[in-house]
Amino acid sequence: DPKILQRKSVQPIQGFFMAELKVGLGLVGRDLSEKIVGNKYGVIADHKVARLYGDNLLKSLEQAGVEATLFTFPQGEKNKTLQTVGTLASQLAQAGFDRQDALVAFGGGVTGDITGFLASSYMRGIPFVQVPTTLLAQVDSSVGGKTGVDIPEGKNLVGAFYQPKAVYIDIELLKTLPGDELLGGLGEVIKYGVIRDPEFFDFLQMKRSEILALDMQLLEKMIYRCCEIKAGVVAEDEREGGVRKILNYGHTIGHAVEAASDFTLIHGLAVSIGMVAAARLAVANDLLTADVSEKIYQLLKLYKMPVEVPDNLDRKRIKKYLLTDKKAVSGKVVFVLPVEIGDTRIVDTVTEEQIDKVLA
Amino acid sequence: DPKILQRKSVQPIQGFFMAELKVGLGLVGRDLSEKIVGNKYGVIADHKVARLYGDNLLKSLEQAGVEATLFTFPQGEKNKTLQTVGTLASQLAQAGFDRQDALVAFGGGVTGDITGFLASSYMRGIPFVQVPTTLLAQVDSSVGGKTGVDIPEGKNLVGAFYQPKAVYIDIELLKTLPGDELLGGLGEVIKYGVIRDPEFFDFLQMKRSEILALDMQLLEKMIYRCCEIKAGVVAEDEREGGVRKILNYGHTIGHAVEAASDFTLIHGLAVSIGMVAAARLAVANDLLTADVSEKIYQLLKLYKMPVEVPDNLDRKRIKKYLLTDKKAVSGKVVFVLPVEIGDTRIVDTVTEEQIDKVLA
Repeated sequence: DPKILQRKSVQPIQGFFMAELKVGLGLVGRDLSEKIVGNKYGVIADHKVARLYGDNLLKSLEQAGVEATLFTFPQGEKNKTLQTVGTLASQLAQAGFDRQDALVAFGGGVTGDITGFLASSYMRGIPFVQVPTTLLAQVDSSVGGKTGVDIPEGKNLVGAFYQPKAVYIDIELLKTLPGDELLGGLGEVIKYGVIRDPEFFDFLQMKRSEILALDMQLLEKMIYRCCEIKAGVVAEDEREGGVRKILNYGHTIGHAVEAASDFTLIHGLAVSIGMVAAARLAVANDLLTADVSEKIYQLLKLYKMPVEVPDNLDRKRIKKYLLTDKKAVSGKVVFVLPVEIGDTRIVDTVTEEQIDKVLA
Repeated sequence: DPKILQRKSVQPIQGFFMAELKVGLGLVGRDLSEKIVGNKYGVIADHKVARLYGDNLLKSLEQAGVEATLFTFPQGEKNKTLQTVGTLASQLAQAGFDRQDALVAFGGGVTGDITGFLASSYMRGIPFVQVPTTLLAQVDSSVGGKTGVDIPEGKNLVGAFYQPKAVYIDIELLKTLPGDELLGGLGEVIKYGVIRDPEFFDFLQMKRSEILALDMQLLEKMIYRCCEIKAGVVAEDEREGGVRKILNYGHTIGHAVEAASDFTLIHGLAVSIGMVAAARLAVANDLLTADVSEKIYQLLKLYKMPVEVPDNLDRKRIKKYLLTDKKAVSGKVVFVLPVEIGDTRIVDTVTEEQIDKVLA
């Protein structure tokens, strides 16, 4: 039986509702039959997740008397495009979906991003819920309402802020997650410790072997805390005018490295590289001691994550991506730099020379 | 010199600001230099508008010291697609546009819809202003925040509710508008009289020759009143949960007829046909007297608008489009029916037999 953990998260913000966080795939059907987010549901999944778990979820919905149809798309970041959104919108229209219906994002971050943007824009907005199947999606992308697709010029450059009505998390799914996907998720997990919670940072340091052995109780505690931190930050600042920017710690250089690798380096691991780079930039700007920078570096190494920009990546390309980052303000690259474990500062004063040095 | 008419419209609604309505293309630059909606502006126009008026607007911006770049796309409803949005987003990214910049929708309804949706989704949302160049856009699509693109299954099926920061209206532009474009706009103008304002309905009846002769004072009064009615309705109900639906009077059958004509019939003229059809459905449902239905029919005829569904259109196709209308609720087609001049009722009880009869 899937573990059950149910709670309301933070208060409604800016007219939207933050997600409820729940654990247990088997519960989705039962809960949706009570909550009634939509008359019927379009479950959006990539081919792989549809093959592995599609039957499970549809059975859960069917048994609860919830009408649902599965719509699939080819997996991978390269399919996170406007074209995929258009194809899915056409399929929804052909299947008679209207404003009283809803979507279920069933998969990892790519599926959540596509489905969220599709929900925000199909008939100018229908409700959706998230059922994240990867650690990264469970602790990060399924909470907070950022949705979007990529264009050739960069990731997530077309999208919307759009909140899911609920998030359902089944940690049992992590048992079948490929190793690097798990590591990718742990990159974001460590990020939460660095930006907001020194105690959580220490917990991750002490419990490494249990976490990597997928101790369910520890994973539950860990995921819960991540969602709590993220929901708290988003509740303060949904549209990323201020404090929400701290969630981008490690992402400025991380995104650029990820793009320069043509997405062969997965997101969470690119963020690990970005976190080390940002810590070094913080030291170079006298915002962080070398000791604390080393502590961040060591924790990431402890989890066997990449901590240096791979030699084979073109530095010029990385810098080009940095300048088209959508968090750039009037051509200046904005960085989130740690000032201690649990606190950050947002600066736009990093020099090109300093960037060159951490990329060297 | 362009006429100047400046006023604030309704109060801020649901966290958005309604547009200010102004008249005078020459004012756009001066106003934007004071208001500062964005650091720099991407002016979005189709090839035709860019050729006819692009220099005018860019000069107005340049003279006021406002940085702006023109981005164009091929004209016509058939280019109101996700692909056009993607191409424009790529061009904005290549030109270094970020979240501090803004867009200007410069053209008719198609341009406003594309630009609004692009603004709502580029980097998850940047500000935009409207500079509508057709009567239809001036009295209808530039006010109210509906944006979107078409997919093969139907019009405006992917989009967003997204308010412009300002609307600038130059009625002098109407002097160069093709005759059927003007008539199309007048279709929506007459709609406002039917749904909300019997006095305005009478005004349109009495002043027909002056309006068609483009008497600038009368046009100004007319456009002003239309924007006022629309802004008032939208302020009550931005996301079309209730009263906003009355703006769809004539649009249910109108959209279907427009689509079935493969968009050879322009929007406002299809709406004219839809208004007559809806009036007849109202009579068939004992909601409207035959006299008042005749009054609506006669006013549209007075302006030489089409009032019957063209013989050459496939009735089956029209009915198929009716059922995929995004205002359909759980498979039932929703109609806005007039109950007298100035008042309507929203019903979902129209029978297929009644629809067949008005399509016959």
